[in-house]
Amino acid sequence: MQATEEHHVLIIGCGFGGLEAARALADEDGVRITLVDRSNHHLFQPLLYQVATGGLSAPSIAAPIRHMLRKQRNATVLMAEVVSIDKDARCVLLADGQRIDYDSLIVASGATHSYFGNDQWAEHAPGLKTLDDAFKLRAKVLLAFEQAELAADAAAREPWLTFVVIGAGPTGVEMAGTMAEIARHTLKNEFRRIDPARAQVLLLEGSDRVLQAFKPDLSQKAAQQLAALGVQVRCGAKVVAIDAEGVEVEEAGQRLCIPSRTVVWAAGVAASPLGRCLGVPVDRAGRVIVGPDLSIPGHPEVCVVGDLAAAQSHERDGTTKPVPGVSPGAKQMGRLAAANIVARLHGKPPEAFRYTDYGALATIGRSAAVADLGAVRFSGLPAWLFWLFVHIYFLIGFRNRFVVMMDWATSYFSFQRHARVIAEQARQGQDIGVQSSTKVPSGQRT
Amino acid sequence: MQATEEHHVLIIGCGFGGLEAARALADEDGVRITLVDRSNHHLFQPLLYQVATGGLSAPSIAAPIRHMLRKQRNATVLMAEVVSIDKDARCVLLADGQRIDYDSLIVASGATHSYFGNDQWAEHAPGLKTLDDAFKLRAKVLLAFEQAELAADAAAREPWLTFVVIGAGPTGVEMAGTMAEIARHTLKNEFRRIDPARAQVLLLEGSDRVLQAFKPDLSQKAAQQLAALGVQVRCGAKVVAIDAEGVEVEEAGQRLCIPSRTVVWAAGVAASPLGRCLGVPVDRAGRVIVGPDLSIPGHPEVCVVGDLAAAQSHERDGTTKPVPGVSPGAKQMGRLAAANIVARLHGKPPEAFRYTDYGALATIGRSAAVADLGAVRFSGLPAWLFWLFVHIYFLIGFRNRFVVMMDWATSYFSFQRHARVIAEQARQGQDIGVQSSTKVPSGQRT
Repeated sequence: MQATEEHHVLIIGCGFGGLEAARALADEDGVRITLVDRSNHHLFQPLLYQVATGGLSAPSIAAPIRHMLRKQRNATVLMAEVVSIDKDARCVLLADGQRIDYDSLIVASGATHSYFGNDQWAEHAPGLKTLDDAFKLRAKVLLAFEQAELAADAAAREPWLTFVVIGAGPTGVEMAGTMAEIARHTLKNEFRRIDPARAQVLLLEGSDRVLQAFKPDLSQKAAQQLAALGVQVRCGAKVVAIDAEGVEVEEAGQRLCIPSRTVVWAAGVAASPLGRCLGVPVDRAGRVIVGPDLSIPGHPEVCVVGDLAAAQSHERDGTTKPVPGVSPGAKQMGRLAAANIVARLHGKPPEAFRYTDYGALATIGRSAAVADLGAVRFSGLPAWLFWLFVHIYFLIGFRNRFVVMMDWATSYFSFQRHARVIAEQARQGQDIGVQSSTKVPSGQRT
Repeated sequence: MQATEEHHVLIIGCGFGGLEAARALADEDGVRITLVDRSNHHLFQPLLYQVATGGLSAPSIAAPIRHMLRKQRNATVLMAEVVSIDKDARCVLLADGQRIDYDSLIVASGATHSYFGNDQWAEHAPGLKTLDDAFKLRAKVLLAFEQAELAADAAAREPWLTFVVIGAGPTGVEMAGTMAEIARHTLKNEFRRIDPARAQVLLLEGSDRVLQAFKPDLSQKAAQQLAALGVQVRCGAKVVAIDAEGVEVEEAGQRLCIPSRTVVWAAGVAASPLGRCLGVPVDRAGRVIVGPDLSIPGHPEVCVVGDLAAAQSHERDGTTKPVPGVSPGAKQMGRLAAANIVARLHGKPPEAFRYTDYGALATIGRSAAVADLGAVRFSGLPAWLFWLFVHIYFLIGFRNRFVVMMDWATSYFSFQRHARVIAEQARQGQDIGVQSSTKVPSGQRT
């Protein structure tokens, strides 16, 4: 179908890095692109916790990849899973057995959560990386209140009204703050046997402060705002076990159990296993150690970008510093990887990656956030308004911006969260013992 | 907690009938209500096919039951499944073993789809009754196009681009019309290897015309509009087998196979199995045969309303006629059951049910619908605009009305459907062979 002299760029993963790389190659003559992703949508991950907590519905933060790229005629989108990469034969293998050859490869398959070797915790403490994670978490949180209302006595009720978030990075802080808001405001007056406002939200952090990536004064501000929202922040609490009954922590040399039926994992991240497929050095988190131009050793035609890359920013003064795992970093890497492919095609040398830092932002809950823009640091309502503005601005598509703005405005004034549907599928596998019929195959529900 | 003299009304199911009954009892002194439902949301079922076809997102047509009833202080909402009813002991049993006593009972647990004894078809031809059905169907339809794009050759592609809808009642007609629209318009320009507009949409109907419940002239209009949208209508086609490869039909005495990977079941409805629990006569579809006041024989304190009831409308002239299975019927029954409970409490005789018929409406697709308002029958754009107006008007909540209106307006002019996320869970169990990882438990995704 295409002339043989076309240069074929294969991009694995359509997160911020992969999408940006594909778009950067839109107008390149003689380049055709194949973009492979396991899901059919690009996800605006910074707002995923809003789906998990019922504030937004999925389509507001997820857009079909092939719709986003429909006008880019040189791009073919395939919904498939890459199972291995053969960098010497320059091809990848899909799960269905198909082989795709490439001239240049950009690996942007991102990261998932890591339980630090305790994979048995996954079942009791789900993390938040995909839309499905968000649906499951939403169901888990809302069902906990339903179970508390059904519970026979106070002893049975307590663990359903105790919510534990593990890890006080941006995701953990957002989740804890929003869960406190749901308990105190959203569910007000809706129950007859329990008072949702009595629910406890605990945020456990192994280190000595929340939001480690921020300056200590902002960490302190964040902790104060969390407390004001009703979250119990416990720093220096190391999780040693998680099971169906709750969490066991080590705090100040003592071990104690926190009975809870709703535990959220926001503590660890591990790179996509495709990184190890490349057969080049990776760091402890499994991220591929890339060269200055984001390529892997000995293979200038293979680049790794985004959360999968252990990349350094090459500053003007000759020093290097690590690139944080945030969306601007992934986008900038995607752009450079695309530019370096074009440079190579034209016989020019590749450029080294330099990260432009626009600052760091974290939201905590209603009117609460922290912002560090380098020159200026602020918190509270101004930071929250700034966070709102930035996130709406960067959302995919005008419709989404408009709908999200409307959802946030109505929920700010009404304290409501409209996306509170518990889908039956999202409950499967949960040991809540309510619905004996949830495991009946589709179409045979009784 | 409540005075013992309070009359306890238990309502099973929060569809149109159950919800209306609960609301009708809001201001009754001395009455307390418990509403039990398997899901946490009331579903606006007439628009479910829009969720299945990506036009609307779930929260637009589903509202949390306890939020809808938060101000009704005499109502307690429990999310639980009723597994049996003991009408002599006046109690029901929940799946978790709890027993709930009642003074009056309203059973409104509705209907599900029926495969007429061929339950093995369910796996290959899902129906559409719940939000989960809608998510699965959405995933199935969208994945078919993805699989077609991935297919190695035309022979492998064809069954993925053939869509079969079985049953040309309102749901089947809506599904077929909308699927044709998706293939011809929504997905335009998004694929590189296939042309989605080449997809075939077949609507199979065993009887001699579509929309049997309507007058023959409107059936004919509907068939013409379906053809114009690109749907192949095949009446007199009896389905004899469905498997992973497709559908086998008997048409004009001949058997033929239709290879298809996407088959939708819109042919049969069966009443909720709770009806049989009551130990009173049921009709062939399992619907409970109720008396004029909607109660069951010998138990004036037990009423059955909505799709579970085989009810008669008692006309002023002394004749009776069956009540159609539509939402106004369910609502009117719910209201009467509540009124009869109050009447009994005050020692007054119950009233007989009389159905007020506001007419019948069915939508077919873009600018296509039929309407029968008794005095006047019309079709095409006017019927479609009328259908839009009615459905927006009856939607739950102002936000939903507004969002749905906006979604419809944008999708009418852009031909787009925003809710095109394929959730991974919705794919589970599908034999598409793409995602080997879909069965990994949550949190362990690699």
